[in-house]
Amino acid sequence: MRDDLRKNFASDNVTPACPAVMQAIADANTGNVPSYGHDDLSLTLNQRFGEVFEAEVAVFPVATGTATNSLALSAMVPPYGSVLCDQSAHINNEEGGAPEFFTQGAKLVGIPSPEGRMDPAGLAPTLQQNRSKGVLAPPFTALSITQATEWGTTYPCTTIAALSEVAHEYGLTVHMDGSRLGNAIAHLNCSPADTTWKAGIDVLSFGGTKAGAMAAEAIVFFLNDQTRPMVDSMARRIKRGGHLWSKQRFMAAQLLALLKDDLWLENCRHANAMCQRLRHGLYKHPAVNLPFATESNEIFAVLPEAQVEQLHAEGYQFYTYPTPQGVPGKLVRFVTSFYTRPEDADALLASLIS
Amino acid sequence: MRDDLRKNFASDNVTPACPAVMQAIADANTGNVPSYGHDDLSLTLNQRFGEVFEAEVAVFPVATGTATNSLALSAMVPPYGSVLCDQSAHINNEEGGAPEFFTQGAKLVGIPSPEGRMDPAGLAPTLQQNRSKGVLAPPFTALSITQATEWGTTYPCTTIAALSEVAHEYGLTVHMDGSRLGNAIAHLNCSPADTTWKAGIDVLSFGGTKAGAMAAEAIVFFLNDQTRPMVDSMARRIKRGGHLWSKQRFMAAQLLALLKDDLWLENCRHANAMCQRLRHGLYKHPAVNLPFATESNEIFAVLPEAQVEQLHAEGYQFYTYPTPQGVPGKLVRFVTSFYTRPEDADALLASLIS
Amino acid sequence: MRDDLRKNFASDNVTPACPAVMQAIADANTGNVPSYGHDDLSLTLNQRFGEVFEAEVAVFPVATGTATNSLALSAMVPPYGSVLCDQSAHINNEEGGAPEFFTQGAKLVGIPSPEGRMDPAGLAPTLQQNRSKGVLAPPFTALSITQATEWGTTYPCTTIAALSEVAHEYGLTVHMDGSRLGNAIAHLNCSPADTTWKAGIDVLSFGGTKAGAMAAEAIVFFLNDQTRPMVDSMARRIKRGGHLWSKQRFMAAQLLALLKDDLWLENCRHANAMCQRLRHGLYKHPAVNLPFATESNEIFAVLPEAQVEQLHAEGYQFYTYPTPQGVPGKLVRFVTSFYTRPEDADALLASLIS
Amino acid sequence: MRDDLRKNFASDNVTPACPAVMQAIADANTGNVPSYGHDDLSLTLNQRFGEVFEAEVAVFPVATGTATNSLALSAMVPPYGSVLCDQSAHINNEEGGAPEFFTQGAKLVGIPSPEGRMDPAGLAPTLQQNRSKGVLAPPFTALSITQATEWGTTYPCTTIAALSEVAHEYGLTVHMDGSRLGNAIAHLNCSPADTTWKAGIDVLSFGGTKAGAMAAEAIVFFLNDQTRPMVDSMARRIKRGGHLWSKQRFMAAQLLALLKDDLWLENCRHANAMCQRLRHGLYKHPAVNLPFATESNEIFAVLPEAQVEQLHAEGYQFYTYPTPQGVPGKLVRFVTSFYTRPEDADALLASLIS
Repeated sequence: MRDDLRKNFASDNVTPACPAVMQAIADANTGNVPSYGHDDLSLTLNQRFGEVFEAEVAVFPVATGTATNSLALSAMVPPYGSVLCDQSAHINNEEGGAPEFFTQGAKLVGIPSPEGRMDPAGLAPTLQQNRSKGVLAPPFTALSITQATEWGTTYPCTTIAALSEVAHEYGLTVHMDGSRLGNAIAHLNCSPADTTWKAGIDVLSFGGTKAGAMAAEAIVFFLNDQTRPMVDSMARRIKRGGHLWSKQRFMAAQLLALLKDDLWLENCRHANAMCQRLRHGLYKHPAVNLPFATESNEIFAVLPEAQVEQLHAEGYQFYTYPTPQGVPGKLVRFVTSFYTRPEDADALLASLIS
Repeated sequence: MRDDLRKNFASDNVTPACPAVMQAIADANTGNVPSYGHDDLSLTLNQRFGEVFEAEVAVFPVATGTATNSLALSAMVPPYGSVLCDQSAHINNEEGGAPEFFTQGAKLVGIPSPEGRMDPAGLAPTLQQNRSKGVLAPPFTALSITQATEWGTTYPCTTIAALSEVAHEYGLTVHMDGSRLGNAIAHLNCSPADTTWKAGIDVLSFGGTKAGAMAAEAIVFFLNDQTRPMVDSMARRIKRGGHLWSKQRFMAAQLLALLKDDLWLENCRHANAMCQRLRHGLYKHPAVNLPFATESNEIFAVLPEAQVEQLHAEGYQFYTYPTPQGVPGKLVRFVTSFYTRPEDADALLASLIS
Repeated sequence: MRDDLRKNFASDNVTPACPAVMQAIADANTGNVPSYGHDDLSLTLNQRFGEVFEAEVAVFPVATGTATNSLALSAMVPPYGSVLCDQSAHINNEEGGAPEFFTQGAKLVGIPSPEGRMDPAGLAPTLQQNRSKGVLAPPFTALSITQATEWGTTYPCTTIAALSEVAHEYGLTVHMDGSRLGNAIAHLNCSPADTTWKAGIDVLSFGGTKAGAMAAEAIVFFLNDQTRPMVDSMARRIKRGGHLWSKQRFMAAQLLALLKDDLWLENCRHANAMCQRLRHGLYKHPAVNLPFATESNEIFAVLPEAQVEQLHAEGYQFYTYPTPQGVPGKLVRFVTSFYTRPEDADALLASLIS
Repeated sequence: MRDDLRKNFASDNVTPACPAVMQAIADANTGNVPSYGHDDLSLTLNQRFGEVFEAEVAVFPVATGTATNSLALSAMVPPYGSVLCDQSAHINNEEGGAPEFFTQGAKLVGIPSPEGRMDPAGLAPTLQQNRSKGVLAPPFTALSITQATEWGTTYPCTTIAALSEVAHEYGLTVHMDGSRLGNAIAHLNCSPADTTWKAGIDVLSFGGTKAGAMAAEAIVFFLNDQTRPMVDSMARRIKRGGHLWSKQRFMAAQLLALLKDDLWLENCRHANAMCQRLRHGLYKHPAVNLPFATESNEIFAVLPEAQVEQLHAEGYQFYTYPTPQGVPGKLVRFVTSFYTRPEDADALLASLIS
């Protein structure tokens, strides 16, 4: 195996599929079966997710996180509506305008926050002001919460509950971008239910790809009076978006493999542990600053520029970010995964210290 | 293996993935590699497709045929434009409004035809009349040709060339929905180039899933002055549509496996042969009428209603269609594939005759 | 006054505003009043239209017929839905894709008919087939009826009722494009209620501009369980479409002037009478064929080409249409209006005969 | 005349039409003339605007400012693109999502600024960062500048030129929301050319309604290599948006009346003068703070809450805004217009002081 395959800390989406997922795909490759989700594997998804989340759910598998978020929002927000989210949210910055496309022009409004976590205290005034503008401003109709956040932090379940409560009061429904939900749950040591519907989440983007799938995510509707009508149009939205696989068994198989024996959580626990291993090493480094808490599988660090260059020279891959004017060094992000080994983290740290 | 897995003639999208595709997916499951199409496999697609089509091309892999068609058209037609196609076209009838969604409201106009093939003679007057309406009618900016057609027939390359010529004269670019392109090529016994860019096709939806992939199609731009600007925006359109896989190597691997040693064509030749086997049997049946030529892997037949019921009772799966008023019997469609065995076709025929 | 101002039979939209409308605009030009429809004139629209239509209504004034139709449909049909209409419908052919734009990509499907009038008998099978296609076909969610039709004919109220009944049975709501509603009512000699909500119409595009306004139409919701939720989003849709006038009093004033003492109907009765005057003259002409009934203010005639050329040479303006292959002569349309004088019609006929 | 008609300082869009505009509308009400902009008045717009702006222009009249801005942007930005503007911009906050609707989902990104004026120094880094994100972020393709701004300030022509230069360097085209352009020009005492194309503006939203029209604005393309292709699609975009008036002469007449003898500038000069009259009075008031420069016809003031209540009690109409936490009093806005008399301003001030 080439050396560089272990030096890529750019994202958890650079990983292969984990072995259990690959086996499940192979096992699903039987003869002719009904297409478009009428196969036996797809037909068990609702029940299986329902067990994991301890709730009545309607599940729609989709191949990418961008599609999952965007399709979910499209059912929650009318084209003339608006989505409130943290300013750092993936939907707001890194999905190429997909939420605007699928909602057909709804407006995303990002609230600035210090660590990627919206503050429940600021929510009501924002919603109140929007309401006061009448037809002049697209009405907020959904709140989107990213768990874990884009800065590697995690919302406590009580904060999510507080946000949801205000949102529901103002008539919004609440979406969770759970692209790294497993990492958040692993960190919080809570149940999948605790941080989702029990905290007021109506619709979840369940992330599978970063947790070990080849290409499998899921839109999960926690069934209630608000979400039931959304479910009705979902199959049409997915088909219209070109996201309905004819051979959907192959997507269902991946999700079922991840859910079996909590494999997704095991994978995420490992990824988090590898990230903490990085943190311990980085923390000791005198020239390194760690601006955020590390509560999932992403760690952000301000490194001296020379260190950044050296890592790149050694073949390491990771993202760098603009640092505020006057701050010396460079903000970088390292992401770990189920595929990261302790020796991979140690090697990175060793390179750094040398 | 369950019996019903061999009795499903509903579509060629009910099939499993063929073994070479499965192997290629497994082989691609190495360590961390760059995401979003920057992996080694994805990076060879342009060259490999270029060899197969004997042309300079830009290739964008996508998981579904609906996405392929719709994304291709979105680059060819402005939101205020219009697409001309055969009335039977898949884009016009079976894609849940995806072309309208991705083009952001362009109008599809279907021309009626007897066998799913547009007549070049009627094209110029239609385009002329559209032009004369000025701003009142969305201008035709693309022509879409389905090869093989939705009725199991195939356009001769000369007809495609004649259609393209008129379309180009009027400033349209020409799209081919090649969901079953391999079947058409196998029938015509021509080269992939002959029935595409050599006949004036600018943009091709290359079908892989029905030819043996798990979920892999490709938008193929034949590079020329008209298509080069379309290529520029394509990556953004794909991301915005939620169709950019982070682990794109797994899609590229499938396409490369199909192209290797002309596997896709071999698979399609087999499917066509199985369809001809059905035709020979059906043809002899006194109560069966075959309304269309059988030039790919789909055969349409008018069966007595009792026969239809018996087949269903035996577990056979296939689509039925409304028959024109006064015509006795029922119009049905049987679709064969790389997975159909001679004994499967024979068993169907035997059930029919008994 | 220039001669050509009386020789323009191209449309009823080439006309000036009628004197009462001009006076109403001048009268509305008082001082500062609340904008965006909160002025006193706008606030009386619901009541005034309610009196005229003998129903509880919610009225939204808009400046153009295209906006009226498209905004109305946007509230009736989801982006993934479909509108059924006559193939000749204005929304299907002459609105530059506006219905697709405002509905955000809904599909318009036109049913062919001999005289621009859909046949209630054909409706159920069409709706049934659409339903059977599931997610593959955008579901019909609205039926749009043009009254008077694009071919100058008029639906009997009973036919509208029959169409509406089938549509409602299948869960569609029913829209009327009443761009020439006044002409239809004048012909049918019925009440405004008879041919709209009493015949099952849920949402009406009320045409004012062709009946004598400067630029004033109205979306009229006949309030019921289906339309009430549509009303809720309408103000936002209008603002979002850029159709909310800040000085809306000037639009309201026009509509109120037309409704006062049935001026719109008087104007339309005059237009219809002028059209009958043309018909009487054309009918007698040995070389002229009249393919359709003349039931509003539009008459279609097949004229010898020489006649068409002569009229054009004399400065007459009117539309010509492609005639079916083999039919000699040219299909032309003459449209009369409140502004057409008997001597104008007679002059046209005289030119023709000479 | 009712007293309240003079106490409305809520906006300059609560005003009547000015007498010259009303006369022009009446004068345009001659007989049948070609519709859809082919009338004699519409046909002179390009030349007339060209004279006023000393440039070759293509002009498209539209009834509302929201439509003008949104249609202009739709020709400048692809659906997958992004518009950069000041955070306070009308397009970003008060147009009900219309820019998102007409651009079909392009993303608006607002830059915070102290007085509604973007800082040229910050532009390049913002554009650079956007570029670095590749397909993940919608690319900035247009910059929109509001002149006069939403906070009553005005950009110096040199600042506009500096912003345009950076924008052009990065491949963006530059739009000006000139809803109150006349007020800005009156304040700057420059020529219409100076603050538009001579400062790098490519496309202008020319405001007529607030300057005295009934309902008339214009999209003005300053012709160059970037804008010529935009002009080609404009008529179709306008028709598709339902914004093409059949009786367009009535819109053209308003614009021509405003341009005649610089009436629009005279109206705006008067409005500005009335605003300065208010400022002089407010400035002297010990309990009033004026947070912004007053460089057009809008003045913002922080008033004690009791004063606000009293003014409302006396029938005055004006907008109030949330004040930052801890700031006592209420932020209010007074807008003057061509219709404001000195005695109206004085009466307001008198009420305030009493």
